Amino acid sequence: MYDVERVRADFPILSREVNGKPLTYLDNGASAQKPQCVIDAVTHAYSHEYANVHRGLHYLSNLATEKYEAVRGIVARFLGARDEREIVFTSGTTEAINLVSYGWAAPRMEPGDEIVLSVMEHHANIVPWHFLRERQGVVLKWVDVDATGALDPQKLIDAIGPRTKLVAITHVSNVLGTVVDVKAVCDAAREKGVPVLVDGSQGAVHLPVDVEEIGCDFYAVTGHKLYGPSGSGAIFIRRERMEEMRPFIGGGDMIREVSRDEVIYNDPPMKFEAGTPGIVQQIGMGVALEYLMTLGMENVAAHEADIAAYASERLKGLNWLGLQGTAPGKAAIFSFTMEGAAHAHDISTILDKKGVAVRAGHHCANPLMDHLGVSATCRASFGLYNTREEVDRLIEALELAHDLLG
Amino acid sequence: MYDVERVRADFPILSREVNGKPLTYLDNGASAQKPQCVIDAVTHAYSHEYANVHRGLHYLSNLATEKYEAVRGIVARFLGARDEREIVFTSGTTEAINLVSYGWAAPRMEPGDEIVLSVMEHHANIVPWHFLRERQGVVLKWVDVDATGALDPQKLIDAIGPRTKLVAITHVSNVLGTVVDVKAVCDAAREKGVPVLVDGSQGAVHLPVDVEEIGCDFYAVTGHKLYGPSGSGAIFIRRERMEEMRPFIGGGDMIREVSRDEVIYNDPPMKFEAGTPGIVQQIGMGVALEYLMTLGMENVAAHEADIAAYASERLKGLNWLGLQGTAPGKAAIFSFTMEGAAHAHDISTILDKKGVAVRAGHHCANPLMDHLGVSATCRASFGLYNTREEVDRLIEALELAHDLLG
Repeated sequence: MYDVERVRADFPILSREVNGKPLTYLDNGASAQKPQCVIDAVTHAYSHEYANVHRGLHYLSNLATEKYEAVRGIVARFLGARDEREIVFTSGTTEAINLVSYGWAAPRMEPGDEIVLSVMEHHANIVPWHFLRERQGVVLKWVDVDATGALDPQKLIDAIGPRTKLVAITHVSNVLGTVVDVKAVCDAAREKGVPVLVDGSQGAVHLPVDVEEIGCDFYAVTGHKLYGPSGSGAIFIRRERMEEMRPFIGGGDMIREVSRDEVIYNDPPMKFEAGTPGIVQQIGMGVALEYLMTLGMENVAAHEADIAAYASERLKGLNWLGLQGTAPGKAAIFSFTMEGAAHAHDISTILDKKGVAVRAGHHCANPLMDHLGVSATCRASFGLYNTREEVDRLIEALELAHDLLG
Repeated sequence: MYDVERVRADFPILSREVNGKPLTYLDNGASAQKPQCVIDAVTHAYSHEYANVHRGLHYLSNLATEKYEAVRGIVARFLGARDEREIVFTSGTTEAINLVSYGWAAPRMEPGDEIVLSVMEHHANIVPWHFLRERQGVVLKWVDVDATGALDPQKLIDAIGPRTKLVAITHVSNVLGTVVDVKAVCDAAREKGVPVLVDGSQGAVHLPVDVEEIGCDFYAVTGHKLYGPSGSGAIFIRRERMEEMRPFIGGGDMIREVSRDEVIYNDPPMKFEAGTPGIVQQIGMGVALEYLMTLGMENVAAHEADIAAYASERLKGLNWLGLQGTAPGKAAIFSFTMEGAAHAHDISTILDKKGVAVRAGHHCANPLMDHLGVSATCRASFGLYNTREEVDRLIEALELAHDLLG
């Protein structure tokens, strides 16, 4: 039984007030709060067990290395990867997708080669491909979502042509909450010999993920959205793809030998991890993922599905609210605009006065904003510690905003 | 008056034991320990003030943004930059130098163009340039150090030819402690119209730095070596160079507008900072730099000079010790090998039993190891909290190693 009050008690920040009101934190899509066990792990590492990893032979360095490297196995387990050597540490999904763009895509794409992506991608899964368009003449093929924000996997599959070299697709939209049937996309793409990158920055937060079942080639996750420290993250890269990649960031650790005339690179995954890594952040991310696995991602998903259903029902009851994204089975992420509100920022500012933290803007999804015909939305994104009562507080605050702005 | 005992009391880990002995932490060249104020800042941020930066309008996001952005000014002040917009946040020096390589050098270098660097560079300041050699036919021109490990700036200046597009040089050697007269190099290079990148990963830790006085174009620093959190760092980039750069990592925040067909990039420095940054690490780095400025880098440097002089004298007294690097004015970083020790690792393992943490290996400086004719050294690298008594402990442990291995 998922006890949300007990979960909430694990997150110290949730007991604070904002503007004299209890904090109602609904900005999880941007970043999630941290449980005490993660904060304690970070504090403990710096206070008692800190040293650089890999290259030392002294006690503290060995200890830090052991704790740091153990996280690779934790990430593999969390994502259902068969081999922890298929996990590369990154500072988050942005760096991860750039790694794929620079390390895998750039060296093998010719002018006119295509990347298929959806119109609801986050800029992290757009701009690295725009670089390839600007620099190498790669063509971006965009697939639209329907009026509910749903993405028909067949439309993505149909967009794969003879020049398509990659499909780059989000698992869950950070604006609409739409869940993409990435397994269907991967199954079809594999038959056509086209690798698939899945942006799991939201997906892994809200759904149990099994990269073997999905069948993707790349799956990127963001530690700070998974209740871990800022600056943490990882990407699953299927072994065959990893072997095709050239290094991206150059520096220590990713080499075996360096001379004046040549470099011999280290084996993957180290080949893709240069310099001193985010040691303590990644250790903290490991603790966060263990926390999630102890709760059980099935249970987290079930709790959030309940919150999503309740929030959907209540938000739909506000007939002056323009709700974007009503795809069936969507995650607990809600975007909206309001009649009378000149800008989404006006809404969020009023909500903030009531202690309700939401985000307003384009959510790093300009092409989706264009598609929706809006310049910005307000977004309430829920996490594993949010409650029905907090949905009610959101509704009350929205009603106040409507009174003031309507 | 610099009170080292009071400084030591600020670092909780220094009161722990290792292998039943008080910790003698002499691995600062790899990473430094953290003062309580930095640890507290990190804990406080996660427990009370955490949210994503820049794109929110709610209270916590504004608070986090304010604290995070304030660090830019702190770094500028620490490095003597005139304008905080000349500071780009990075995850450390490795990412920083890759930013310069991908963003500034790669688009403007033709086959046969040259980069001048010294043989004592760290791999972080070698491998990104090897990428350009492998990928674009750039030529690396190496400048040797003399028998003491000193680097004559004139030799670097003489190496600058008509095809030289960049000088990439460390401020302080991470192996030998050699301090390079980077101002002399920059003065001469500027006259020849060649930009200079200074790897300040060690330099900024041991010396007061003023990038305007040095006259460099790029100066990279590593937060975790500056007593800040892992995964933090920054680079000073002179405005003219920044304007010449194309973006490196693509994603959110570094854009102004994204459509299906084009991207309009943000203004520098944001143009070079993609995605959610290392929010809490950078806030922690700001606290660490404030801590250093409160102590006064002149005072830190004077304290370390005393330790360096004492350690030099005592180490030179061990006539069975092979000491690499005796350049005048060197920083408190000592590399050595020992007659009878098959490998440097053997020495460090014995030292560790006495609680003395040093590093053994190639120190990410293979070309220097080749130059010195060794495969590895032991390195004792001192920081602002180390004492003469710890030098004595190092010497005692070395004597034990000599007894056991000799």
